Amino acid sequence: MAEESPARSSQLRKDPVTNRWVIFSPARAKRPSDFKSKFPQNPNPNQQQCPFCIGHEHECAPEIFRLPPDSPDWKIRVIQNLYPALSREIPDRPSVPNPDSDLGSAPWGRVLDGFGFHDVVIEAPVHSVQLSDLSPREIGEVVLAYRRRIEHIASCDSIRYVQVFKNHGASAGASMSHSHSQILALPVAPPAVSTRLGSMKEYFDKTGKCSICELHSEDILIDASSHFTSIVPFAATFPFEIWIIPRDHSPHFHEIDSEKVVDFGGLLKLMLRKLSLQLNNPPFNFMIQTSPLHVNDSEKPYSHWFLQIVPQLTGVGGFEIGTGCYINPVFPEDAAKVLREVNVSF
Amino acid sequence: MAEESPARSSQLRKDPVTNRWVIFSPARAKRPSDFKSKFPQNPNPNQQQCPFCIGHEHECAPEIFRLPPDSPDWKIRVIQNLYPALSREIPDRPSVPNPDSDLGSAPWGRVLDGFGFHDVVIEAPVHSVQLSDLSPREIGEVVLAYRRRIEHIASCDSIRYVQVFKNHGASAGASMSHSHSQILALPVAPPAVSTRLGSMKEYFDKTGKCSICELHSEDILIDASSHFTSIVPFAATFPFEIWIIPRDHSPHFHEIDSEKVVDFGGLLKLMLRKLSLQLNNPPFNFMIQTSPLHVNDSEKPYSHWFLQIVPQLTGVGGFEIGTGCYINPVFPEDAAKVLREVNVSF
Repeated sequence: MAEESPARSSQLRKDPVTNRWVIFSPARAKRPSDFKSKFPQNPNPNQQQCPFCIGHEHECAPEIFRLPPDSPDWKIRVIQNLYPALSREIPDRPSVPNPDSDLGSAPWGRVLDGFGFHDVVIEAPVHSVQLSDLSPREIGEVVLAYRRRIEHIASCDSIRYVQVFKNHGASAGASMSHSHSQILALPVAPPAVSTRLGSMKEYFDKTGKCSICELHSEDILIDASSHFTSIVPFAATFPFEIWIIPRDHSPHFHEIDSEKVVDFGGLLKLMLRKLSLQLNNPPFNFMIQTSPLHVNDSEKPYSHWFLQIVPQLTGVGGFEIGTGCYINPVFPEDAAKVLREVNVSF
Repeated sequence: MAEESPARSSQLRKDPVTNRWVIFSPARAKRPSDFKSKFPQNPNPNQQQCPFCIGHEHECAPEIFRLPPDSPDWKIRVIQNLYPALSREIPDRPSVPNPDSDLGSAPWGRVLDGFGFHDVVIEAPVHSVQLSDLSPREIGEVVLAYRRRIEHIASCDSIRYVQVFKNHGASAGASMSHSHSQILALPVAPPAVSTRLGSMKEYFDKTGKCSICELHSEDILIDASSHFTSIVPFAATFPFEIWIIPRDHSPHFHEIDSEKVVDFGGLLKLMLRKLSLQLNNPPFNFMIQTSPLHVNDSEKPYSHWFLQIVPQLTGVGGFEIGTGCYINPVFPEDAAKVLREVNVSF
């Protein structure tokens, strides 16, 4: 279709979830089906000295739990990050100004102790196995490990938000090639989350409906499982960005039930395989976009979690840093059509 | 100092300009003075076929103006971008839904025609000359070319914001190595600009003062010229980020006068040289952070333009994409001290 249709003009789009203008600029691009990664990831990196491999547990930061519990023949390990961005050692206490700085006590800037948790989820014991190589049930087990760790962390009063994310490939930010994801628990609600919820609230106040539940367009649909739908969002920030959305309204990812995780795992596996086949095994990130830990009853009707997958195909430059506005060379309808048509067998 | 002082703990900071939490995490870093670019830029790339070089003007998109006017021996050219993100061809008219899509007319998403201007400023006629090689007066001429082009564009009613930016180096988004910057004029106020102005308004409403005028800390000062100050911002998003700030309150960059541009050019040159020497000629971006074209009298007291310089030293991963929250391994006071102490002679 992309090949046959007349050349599209540039367009700006904004959706009620992210509420950010995105520039769609097909003039800058090749055909949607010609997009390939310039930095494909080696699916089987040969690494001798990997602390995430089974048998090297002593080289890692302390373990939080493993599955199966206490088994030397583990399938999944959740461990502390050896270089944590935030520290679990800092006393769990409210904001204090930094006495070492003339800035700490000034009303100009605000300072908080860097308290938080930064964990790693090792998704498989063997180095060459990637997340998308696992079965839907095994991916479901990884998802349940995320859920269990978030449930632990939620008992800590100072934590406001838990970000689960995966960096695959060095240019997507991964410093280790062994398949893993990360959990970072923050004492503040991060800016993008506050903006997203504010935007979803605005839509709800206007329409009485949840902006995510209202997403029905066939144009941007890639696939659907029993409980989840995968789409290219209407105002996708990045080319071939995918959202996996639970069809039933649900504010928190960590309320996912054990029955649905296998279904979710199957759709996630399918999307990762499609991206890999279509885009030449690109580096990618995924992020679980959920709600802050404490949402009140008035916030629940418009809060709806989803998983965002972003293949790393285009760089970010001064325009994006300066404006927060992104240029996407591929229209979401075109990306969705290309991804719908990728045949995956497993 | 960084070497002598005890190890710092992680900290979260937020300033009233960007109003975004940034995580400072020195545990993840080497010493501040050890930071170097992993992808240094070749200062003298040898390129045979560069359309930006003098004598190749016919290979470029149409020229808008050159300096000196009509001279074959030009110093600066402002031309159209051959692959514009937005199109000057689309009629200058208000938002219309896209009739080709079932989404265009839906209240769910918003669509605007991609009208705008996307220009390139060729900063020098010779391929091997970088912006920081020019004299303060010559850099001032480039700045005056930005100003002149913005003044043209400001006469177009549909344009809301003009972003001037420079990408230096491929990993900072530059597709051409010949020294150039870009001007992108948008029919909307971009998200980061709206957020920044909202945040500066909040500070003004609380204190009656401009948040940028109130920036006085010696800790984060790098240098100062007659009319400008250069600092590492208190809650810098990126390591070794620099802001060059006019000391006199001024909402719009394009109100800069011809006397001050040489002074500005000198401080910009000094900062680029310091970054290059200290960080091994890193890829970088700079962005002029100004106000939307139309600000009313009530907005002027808290709107204050500045130039933001960001060396590209660390990548962006799933955490940053998901949360909009950045992890900076270098405390601003440490970066400022390192940059203060770099000796530059020119």
